[in-house]
Amino acid sequence: MSEQPLLANLSLNQITTEQWNLREAVEGCVKADIPWIGLWRHKIKEIGFAETKKLIKDSGLQVSSLCRGGMFPAATAKEREEAIEDNKRAIVEAAELGTNVLVLVCGPGPDKDIDTARKWVEEGIEEIVPFAEQHEIKLGIEPLHPMYAADRSVVVTLDQANTMAEKYSPEQVGVIVDVFHVWWDPDLYRQIERAKGRVLGFHVSDWQVPITDTFKARHMMGDGVIEIRRIRKAVEAAGYDGPIEVEIMNDALWNQAGDDVLAVMKDRYAKHV
Amino acid sequence: MSEQPLLANLSLNQITTEQWNLREAVEGCVKADIPWIGLWRHKIKEIGFAETKKLIKDSGLQVSSLCRGGMFPAATAKEREEAIEDNKRAIVEAAELGTNVLVLVCGPGPDKDIDTARKWVEEGIEEIVPFAEQHEIKLGIEPLHPMYAADRSVVVTLDQANTMAEKYSPEQVGVIVDVFHVWWDPDLYRQIERAKGRVLGFHVSDWQVPITDTFKARHMMGDGVIEIRRIRKAVEAAGYDGPIEVEIMNDALWNQAGDDVLAVMKDRYAKHV
Repeated sequence: MSEQPLLANLSLNQITTEQWNLREAVEGCVKADIPWIGLWRHKIKEIGFAETKKLIKDSGLQVSSLCRGGMFPAATAKEREEAIEDNKRAIVEAAELGTNVLVLVCGPGPDKDIDTARKWVEEGIEEIVPFAEQHEIKLGIEPLHPMYAADRSVVVTLDQANTMAEKYSPEQVGVIVDVFHVWWDPDLYRQIERAKGRVLGFHVSDWQVPITDTFKARHMMGDGVIEIRRIRKAVEAAGYDGPIEVEIMNDALWNQAGDDVLAVMKDRYAKHV
Repeated sequence: MSEQPLLANLSLNQITTEQWNLREAVEGCVKADIPWIGLWRHKIKEIGFAETKKLIKDSGLQVSSLCRGGMFPAATAKEREEAIEDNKRAIVEAAELGTNVLVLVCGPGPDKDIDTARKWVEEGIEEIVPFAEQHEIKLGIEPLHPMYAADRSVVVTLDQANTMAEKYSPEQVGVIVDVFHVWWDPDLYRQIERAKGRVLGFHVSDWQVPITDTFKARHMMGDGVIEIRRIRKAVEAAGYDGPIEVEIMNDALWNQAGDDVLAVMKDRYAKHV
């Protein structure tokens, strides 16, 4: 594997330029020679699905993933059923946009009972796998950092995501490795190896102390403590050679000109990923 | 095991009343019939060690633990040696104060190399075990929440702490279970069972969304999402019947009258621990 990551794999996860609408993000990527883009559904909604599809097709960009499905746990059966329906819509959207991966951010529990919330996640995945398969979409379970266990995801380690994914074939369900979420894990490299053939996405950013807003806590690669290149090489050794999404929620970046963010992002990608 | 925790096990971890000096905390516990206190070294320094010892002795309070030893990783061998010396001083202090446990907050790494930092933690513990044994002090490795991996502790799971502790006898090295640090862990109950006979302390507080300051993020038991009673019962099933420290860093509590904090703490302890 090469020391530097391939520029051909670089993807802008759209949340990194939250200040841009989808059209601006697409145009920005084309201008900056960034070949991939990871789309968010709230951004698609703003301009509409038909317009999104046309923009992507005309641009020549490839869609690395659609964010997000998941959010399975809920207090009532009716809400959980609605979550399933929403996941099915996301699967159809992902397929029409030409990506083969739907990222699953699995969701928090509605109360203190985290075991039951985790069971609901497993049941939710079980329900949507056949539908995803029909649409040739793979489901990527993304473990989130444990600091999000109460408000974003009860799936918090790669071990847990691997165990959930292994009930299915690698063509059906895999995992997303995001360095921000997993870098602290003493079991990280063993779990990446275990995910061999099943890594469906790789996301990069950095962890910088102090954290004052858990959601907008991420930083540009190189500004923090994560051994990003080491993790990238491990993921490649596990067979992953797909797009690498730069996914950074950060107020300072969101207040900059989007083109400047992309310029720094390309530079840091070459140096630190 | 009883449904409610024993009042005889309740301990004020001194950081919960950061607004009080050590004398005020001791007097507050006596007044509120709280039989245990967990001491912090920066509070001891304020009034001096001799005065602390006398205060504790005269009060009849029992010291549940001394916080803290640890902080092993450092960039230079000289600094790491200084950390060992400081740990030895803490061991002597713990013994003189009549507790048999020194809590180890193991420390962050000085750079991105988290594996080496973890190795330094293991080497540091190895160095102080004989000295601790001579002074009849057990070392309690406290895994911290992974959100502190960059600035407080490279030991972040009970699995990791157990693995480190198991190199020694339960009379030498054990683990501290703090619900705030471990509640999110999918492997929690298995690891508590694994720690049987080796749990040296149990700390309680609660996790409330949102987190805006990672250090002062804790809340009073019952104000968050942690299944505290379930974890307490698991720890008891693993043979722990010692003091239960209430350890809460929280600006709102620090701005209240200390006596009021203790009143609420006793009430919440009975209801939620």
